[in-house]
Amino acid sequence: MYAIPLGEDGAELRPLEPWHAEEFLAHMERGREFIGQFIPFGATATDLASTRELLQKHADATATGTRAYHGIWLDGTLVGGVLALNFDAENGNGEVGCWLEPAAAGRGLVTRAMRHLIDWAVEERGIHRVEWIAASENTPSVNVARRLGFTKEGVLRESFPWRGKRHDMEIWSVLAPEWRGARSGHRER
Amino acid sequence: MYAIPLGEDGAELRPLEPWHAEEFLAHMERGREFIGQFIPFGATATDLASTRELLQKHADATATGTRAYHGIWLDGTLVGGVLALNFDAENGNGEVGCWLEPAAAGRGLVTRAMRHLIDWAVEERGIHRVEWIAASENTPSVNVARRLGFTKEGVLRESFPWRGKRHDMEIWSVLAPEWRGARSGHRER
Amino acid sequence: MYAIPLGEDGAELRPLEPWHAEEFLAHMERGREFIGQFIPFGATATDLASTRELLQKHADATATGTRAYHGIWLDGTLVGGVLALNFDAENGNGEVGCWLEPAAAGRGLVTRAMRHLIDWAVEERGIHRVEWIAASENTPSVNVARRLGFTKEGVLRESFPWRGKRHDMEIWSVLAPEWRGARSGHRER
Amino acid sequence: MYAIPLGEDGAELRPLEPWHAEEFLAHMERGREFIGQFIPFGATATDLASTRELLQKHADATATGTRAYHGIWLDGTLVGGVLALNFDAENGNGEVGCWLEPAAAGRGLVTRAMRHLIDWAVEERGIHRVEWIAASENTPSVNVARRLGFTKEGVLRESFPWRGKRHDMEIWSVLAPEWRGARSGHRER
Amino acid sequence: MYAIPLGEDGAELRPLEPWHAEEFLAHMERGREFIGQFIPFGATATDLASTRELLQKHADATATGTRAYHGIWLDGTLVGGVLALNFDAENGNGEVGCWLEPAAAGRGLVTRAMRHLIDWAVEERGIHRVEWIAASENTPSVNVARRLGFTKEGVLRESFPWRGKRHDMEIWSVLAPEWRGARSGHRER
Amino acid sequence: MYAIPLGEDGAELRPLEPWHAEEFLAHMERGREFIGQFIPFGATATDLASTRELLQKHADATATGTRAYHGIWLDGTLVGGVLALNFDAENGNGEVGCWLEPAAAGRGLVTRAMRHLIDWAVEERGIHRVEWIAASENTPSVNVARRLGFTKEGVLRESFPWRGKRHDMEIWSVLAPEWRGARSGHRER
Repeated sequence: MYAIPLGEDGAELRPLEPWHAEEFLAHMERGREFIGQFIPFGATATDLASTRELLQKHADATATGTRAYHGIWLDGTLVGGVLALNFDAENGNGEVGCWLEPAAAGRGLVTRAMRHLIDWAVEERGIHRVEWIAASENTPSVNVARRLGFTKEGVLRESFPWRGKRHDMEIWSVLAPEWRGARSGHRER
Repeated sequence: MYAIPLGEDGAELRPLEPWHAEEFLAHMERGREFIGQFIPFGATATDLASTRELLQKHADATATGTRAYHGIWLDGTLVGGVLALNFDAENGNGEVGCWLEPAAAGRGLVTRAMRHLIDWAVEERGIHRVEWIAASENTPSVNVARRLGFTKEGVLRESFPWRGKRHDMEIWSVLAPEWRGARSGHRER
Repeated sequence: MYAIPLGEDGAELRPLEPWHAEEFLAHMERGREFIGQFIPFGATATDLASTRELLQKHADATATGTRAYHGIWLDGTLVGGVLALNFDAENGNGEVGCWLEPAAAGRGLVTRAMRHLIDWAVEERGIHRVEWIAASENTPSVNVARRLGFTKEGVLRESFPWRGKRHDMEIWSVLAPEWRGARSGHRER
Repeated sequence: MYAIPLGEDGAELRPLEPWHAEEFLAHMERGREFIGQFIPFGATATDLASTRELLQKHADATATGTRAYHGIWLDGTLVGGVLALNFDAENGNGEVGCWLEPAAAGRGLVTRAMRHLIDWAVEERGIHRVEWIAASENTPSVNVARRLGFTKEGVLRESFPWRGKRHDMEIWSVLAPEWRGARSGHRER
Repeated sequence: MYAIPLGEDGAELRPLEPWHAEEFLAHMERGREFIGQFIPFGATATDLASTRELLQKHADATATGTRAYHGIWLDGTLVGGVLALNFDAENGNGEVGCWLEPAAAGRGLVTRAMRHLIDWAVEERGIHRVEWIAASENTPSVNVARRLGFTKEGVLRESFPWRGKRHDMEIWSVLAPEWRGARSGHRER
Repeated sequence: MYAIPLGEDGAELRPLEPWHAEEFLAHMERGREFIGQFIPFGATATDLASTRELLQKHADATATGTRAYHGIWLDGTLVGGVLALNFDAENGNGEVGCWLEPAAAGRGLVTRAMRHLIDWAVEERGIHRVEWIAASENTPSVNVARRLGFTKEGVLRESFPWRGKRHDMEIWSVLAPEWRGARSGHRER
């Protein structure tokens, strides 16, 4: 029902809900290998039943107010998304994250979607500090954080065991005043 | 984050969520008496805590997929809404309902919002039969059902005890093929 | 422990409880095809474990006060039953339903059992409106409603998808004053 | 709906359910002091809300199959009852208990009701060992156990702290073969 | 982290927790046949998943305050344990129990561990009555109770169906003043 | 029952459990102001009921395996404690924390207790990375982390709103190999 156009190339941001299970599974099958390089996102969605279960978990977490899932559709195909997590409006803290299938990479879709999500977090929900956590080796993710105006705050050494190795994770954040400044900047561009 | 313009008078349809508690309470305080003539909607929202609790119940029901709440904002003020309930996509059945504060009545806001909701139910979610239940005496509600192309199917005698009287309730419905026809009709207008 | 004689042919009404699982399963195996023509009652009871699970769900719903299950035993064999559902004593509304295996049909067992159930609903529990919902094509069920003095209130078009077709469902009801009148009538007979 | 006559003095045994809250509260107010000498039964039922809550707990326990509550009505007034508890049909073990308001004492009501309950436990539910636990000082309770043919098995020293003193509790039991014998005996009387 | 030495032979008492699943399973595989003669303890722990599940149930019960599980390690190998159950500090009642694999029997390990457990129950938690329940035929268990100063209070006839036979169960107890006396005794030895 | 001596001054580490509610409340009343400078620990424990509730929450979290609470007793008085939280043995990550009432500060109690807790985490539970999070202004806490051999990894800017100000939080960690090294060091001292 709801959709936010992300530009002139047919990309849209929409709420991602349990009834998207078939689309989400097809998307995961195209993107699982690529997405799974650095994050376990969607890994448990391997057939229709497990996909429904995963999206239902997302819906339940959304209902608690601590998460929010938004899909990115490109020409009617679900190709990725952005999410809010560890969302704590009372304390003004929240984390954001993203995922994308490989065919949709390189177009700035996440950056465009993220601007809407962070605007909402900062301006509508009153979040003061937006956090971004990514494996140090996940260059594309780190680059999006930098491009959006986040500041690197530290490195959690060997904190994420994934595929046989303990990865360092970087913490980046943008504070509300910084976001408003950065946004003015990117709006000018 | 999401908003659907409902026309050129500044009316918008947006997801209604627990963090709208303050707005919802103010809206209820303006509309409680009027809305409460025929339905108990929002009656338990009498202070901020009980309003949050009510909206959280709505959010929990939404997460199960059986309900969906959408607010109508007029020039930035929440003035009413439409909801899906008893939603059973598997069997192709669903009910819709609405509420409005008095200052916003007479502008066709519910009719406009309902078209989006029923379009979504029929076209995106595959609902075959959309039901509308209203007290026989609730003329404005019955009129909206008629205007949207619903058919009256029966009267549940003395089925709704409300404010000291057992009211008759009317059941109306529109089937998917009827809706597509009716929609063609109203789109031409 | 409890049993109400339903006449002089050895028929009895008794609470139906989880420990009747073996009897209920045998009954379902005799009656599943016949009962399943118009209603899914008992369809999930296919072995002892699933039967126990189903009867436990019934017991849990009974404990909430919204349902009540009573079996009909004929010469010591469970052959069908009557149930209260959507029971809302606070608002004076309740629905009743029934099922029967084919060998026990044609004896008026449901009608006899239903009189006890509706008496209890109206006189002991204060139900004002007793509802009966049946597929339009389910002639035996519709006939029992008519025989018990129910009034047809409407037809829910294409509301029940069952075995590849969307069935119309009829709503019938009897109000407490009507029941007391009808009962006087049938007692005279 | 269900009732078992307990004799010719108008006494009846019926399922005790949450909707009996008003009757149960009135009964407790007449009997609380007397019943409370040796057992906490019904102690938390002090107004209508707490009585509903207590009877709902009973109903929930009944639904699990581990308990069953039956009221004794004398000329239409609830005056006491019998219950099954710690009921474990799988292992053939169960406990029985009783309570009575003082005006109904001395008529053998509990003994009469208990025969139906133990018959049901032994013959319908397959219980092999029926247990009876009472404070050593609770002479009326101990006497009923003896009269019903139970055997004293031991004394749990200082096991029940009640009203400022640790009471000894006696354990009595009757085994299924003993019950069938005892029953033959009392039926002859 | 915590460990209480039980003597000079390398025996220790430690909290038994879910992360001991591997050790517990190995212990059960050595002791299942022996332990299973009279009690079902650990019977459901047949692989690593079911063992984790069992120990998690123990942990959940421990969190409620009604149980406590302590393992006995001999030279670093888990060989048995003692537990508190039906623990009711408010009423001053509690039961204790034990289990042991055969290779560790005959050394008094349970007796030594039990002294710590009962001391804790009586002196730290204020338990007035400590109960011990064992099958009459379980001579080793009955002997430990006697050795620890418990008094036999009765025999629950045919109360425990196990391996095709209904066993008599003995109830023993020690009261706090008795324990303090008995303890003085065994400390002198 | 369990206690680990922390030195020769009568300090002990013991499991902290719900039945310590009275002691914990008294401790909080002595320490609330001091402890509350930088952390909300224990803030909800204001009377016996709320203290029991808080300790029960701790016990429930402990049962899930994600937390563990240990009190520090000095000459028989509860004066502080150490805890494990966000414990994820499967991934080898865990956080530790501490609290202390002012009269017990300056004796190195937390440092001593923490060595046992981290030893247990690293050697018994297989934690690879132990995290320490403290407000930048909480000098005593930061000093303990440094003294124990933790490394500062970053500063989460304005992440902790507390008493009217958004505080920077520092993240420190020690990895298992580092801990083993540091431990050799401090053991030599």
